[in-house]
Amino acid sequence: MQTPIILVNFKTYAEATGRNALNLAKTAEKINQETGVSVGIAPQFVDIASIAQNVSIPVFAQHIDPVTHGSFTGHVLPEAVKEAGAVGTLINHSERRLKLADIDAAITRAQQVGLVTVICSNNSAVSAAIAALNPNMVAVEPPELIGSGIPVSKAKPEVVSGTVELVKRVNPNVIVLCGAGITTGEDVASALKLGTKGVLVASGIVKAKDQYKALLDFAEAITKA
Amino acid sequence: MQTPIILVNFKTYAEATGRNALNLAKTAEKINQETGVSVGIAPQFVDIASIAQNVSIPVFAQHIDPVTHGSFTGHVLPEAVKEAGAVGTLINHSERRLKLADIDAAITRAQQVGLVTVICSNNSAVSAAIAALNPNMVAVEPPELIGSGIPVSKAKPEVVSGTVELVKRVNPNVIVLCGAGITTGEDVASALKLGTKGVLVASGIVKAKDQYKALLDFAEAITKA
Amino acid sequence: MQTPIILVNFKTYAEATGRNALNLAKTAEKINQETGVSVGIAPQFVDIASIAQNVSIPVFAQHIDPVTHGSFTGHVLPEAVKEAGAVGTLINHSERRLKLADIDAAITRAQQVGLVTVICSNNSAVSAAIAALNPNMVAVEPPELIGSGIPVSKAKPEVVSGTVELVKRVNPNVIVLCGAGITTGEDVASALKLGTKGVLVASGIVKAKDQYKALLDFAEAITKA
Amino acid sequence: MQTPIILVNFKTYAEATGRNALNLAKTAEKINQETGVSVGIAPQFVDIASIAQNVSIPVFAQHIDPVTHGSFTGHVLPEAVKEAGAVGTLINHSERRLKLADIDAAITRAQQVGLVTVICSNNSAVSAAIAALNPNMVAVEPPELIGSGIPVSKAKPEVVSGTVELVKRVNPNVIVLCGAGITTGEDVASALKLGTKGVLVASGIVKAKDQYKALLDFAEAITKA
Repeated sequence: MQTPIILVNFKTYAEATGRNALNLAKTAEKINQETGVSVGIAPQFVDIASIAQNVSIPVFAQHIDPVTHGSFTGHVLPEAVKEAGAVGTLINHSERRLKLADIDAAITRAQQVGLVTVICSNNSAVSAAIAALNPNMVAVEPPELIGSGIPVSKAKPEVVSGTVELVKRVNPNVIVLCGAGITTGEDVASALKLGTKGVLVASGIVKAKDQYKALLDFAEAITKA
Repeated sequence: MQTPIILVNFKTYAEATGRNALNLAKTAEKINQETGVSVGIAPQFVDIASIAQNVSIPVFAQHIDPVTHGSFTGHVLPEAVKEAGAVGTLINHSERRLKLADIDAAITRAQQVGLVTVICSNNSAVSAAIAALNPNMVAVEPPELIGSGIPVSKAKPEVVSGTVELVKRVNPNVIVLCGAGITTGEDVASALKLGTKGVLVASGIVKAKDQYKALLDFAEAITKA
Repeated sequence: MQTPIILVNFKTYAEATGRNALNLAKTAEKINQETGVSVGIAPQFVDIASIAQNVSIPVFAQHIDPVTHGSFTGHVLPEAVKEAGAVGTLINHSERRLKLADIDAAITRAQQVGLVTVICSNNSAVSAAIAALNPNMVAVEPPELIGSGIPVSKAKPEVVSGTVELVKRVNPNVIVLCGAGITTGEDVASALKLGTKGVLVASGIVKAKDQYKALLDFAEAITKA
Repeated sequence: MQTPIILVNFKTYAEATGRNALNLAKTAEKINQETGVSVGIAPQFVDIASIAQNVSIPVFAQHIDPVTHGSFTGHVLPEAVKEAGAVGTLINHSERRLKLADIDAAITRAQQVGLVTVICSNNSAVSAAIAALNPNMVAVEPPELIGSGIPVSKAKPEVVSGTVELVKRVNPNVIVLCGAGITTGEDVASALKLGTKGVLVASGIVKAKDQYKALLDFAEAITKA
């Protein structure tokens, strides 16, 4: 996966569900094609297949369960997510926290089926703990800033730089992203300066008046950096 | 929704994931067309859209979360399930139990978006409790018999008839199904004799050597009854 | 258990932990002795034993788990709660919601060891569902009013009277309490007028400037009614 | 806390509930007095206070919740556990797994009130993750061996030595214990040879025909080592 990356979490926003999800996915693909900047998208489970069939950029699940083929009604099977066309998955998002043993098991299962893992964390100590589980990426997001419009890279730069430092010490192979409150290209630039390889963003793009312009602003911050 | 109904839960079985899920859905549609018996299917979230586009029988989600549009990463939004083509949903399956207040809220949300609700229960008292929440259907399944091959209609007929009786007393509008260990047409016939309007089945169909024959056996038990 | 009852939930308030818990328990006992009104108390697990040894009024646990003797580290065993001196337990409080099947199992376990069950609910439909599980009492508390100081008996009287009516229809043996925002004797009087047999209260007593006066006000409302 | 330590988890065993819990606590104290070996005990919440008042050895809670004084009905408040006389707590036992962010928050809360933290893990990677959260101890226990009578130190020595090695690399201040299937002094000796500073044990002591003899066997293995 090419970095720096802008990873857009669609959550369950109306502006990113069903037909709207497909439209936003195409906008993200357009930005990638125009700027060369890596843009990933994480739509809802039911939208993964149709989006993956229609765009060339990386599609992520918002969550997987650490389950196998078998009796797991209502769970999200890594194999199914993969077959639907996703190339990676978020795990342990602030809105879908997992037990520690389940994060470990979900990372293992993702690796078995070939999904890139982006594990969310809430502070630098938890980021370091996650790094010990050997995922591909950690995305640190102080929960109180999520959806706030106050960028973590300004409000809590020490959480971001602390995560970069602690993760490097525990496991230098793990790529660090940051998120929460990221709404402008300037916020993205700050995130990169703090040592991350990109951002995890949701409302900043999904709820923008002009999703294309907002994403372009993000991408240009990366090309300039 | 026409009853009696055979509702096939695909769980996360390999034989009912991705391409296999679509094949089983088409088999189920064929049985419906040949026998006129109502057959519903509950595939995994990521498979709902492609299946709903390709078959005319009712598609159910295996679970929904009691959430709305907004910040609910990794959750299953009723609106998204509906837009993907599902007409109903299982709730509170033995493998995906919910808190009581969340069952109530999930039923309300399903009704708001127009999804038929099939709430799973583990005994007759819990079935009666669920009936008070006014879902469309209750499916009683003693957990210890799920996947056992020992049909609830034979092993614990009193759980089934007790559910039928208690549910009728609390809320006569609620349709009762039963499940767990149902593997033959004879089991289906017993379920109907005990007062249910159909069965919830998983391994009995999904893991059958010949899924078509197994489903046909079920459907013929209904046409004979 | 004598009704009407004032059941005081100590939560994890500083004013009702450890030594403070014992003091509040003695205050509650004094009110009971002076007015004859039934007063129950629900302290934290670790405080149950010392309180039960020192007061004669009924002591409740704030929660039990539906477990038995065995391998259940960190769980609350009904037998242990009983041996420590509790005579009853809250189950499914808004701050400790349980899965439906676990509420049913916890009620069964409580009955096996002889604990009175007070099951919390968030609305009238859920109250009716709980009544079908045959507990001793249901305490309806709209979550948005808990700790608000706005009494449910004024803000949502229809939730209280609806609960009384629906519970009577499903299971007339179940006693109805109400809670949330109850802070004065007047609120208690309203609760009784709406058909309940008492109140579940927390901050209204625990955080009162004068716990004795606040409880006396509650008790006198009951003796007057 | 003196190491090596034998930490006895009482779970919800009948042989270690209520009066039996107090008896076992006194037996453990006797072993400590006779051999000088450090013995800790983790009884159920309701038994903490009476045991802490009656024995001089360290008492642990089996779990705490990452909550503060306030509205947390049915939760286990660190302050209350401390005031009841516990000096430490287990966190994240296999039978009471927590979300990662909650383990981090529970460790922080325990430190704020002065409780020693023993965090349970299921494998060496998870142990390393926990070490990054800076607890006092990690106790590695492969869940499949818990209660099996097959000692982890023999069945999976690589899990134990791997934990010792990885934890040292991530955070050398963290003390490593191991558990699962430990039933003889020989198992304890193996655990020490693999680099741990003691064992977490439950059924091996609690369910022993002669709890005193079993504990003595453990303690002598430590004095010999």
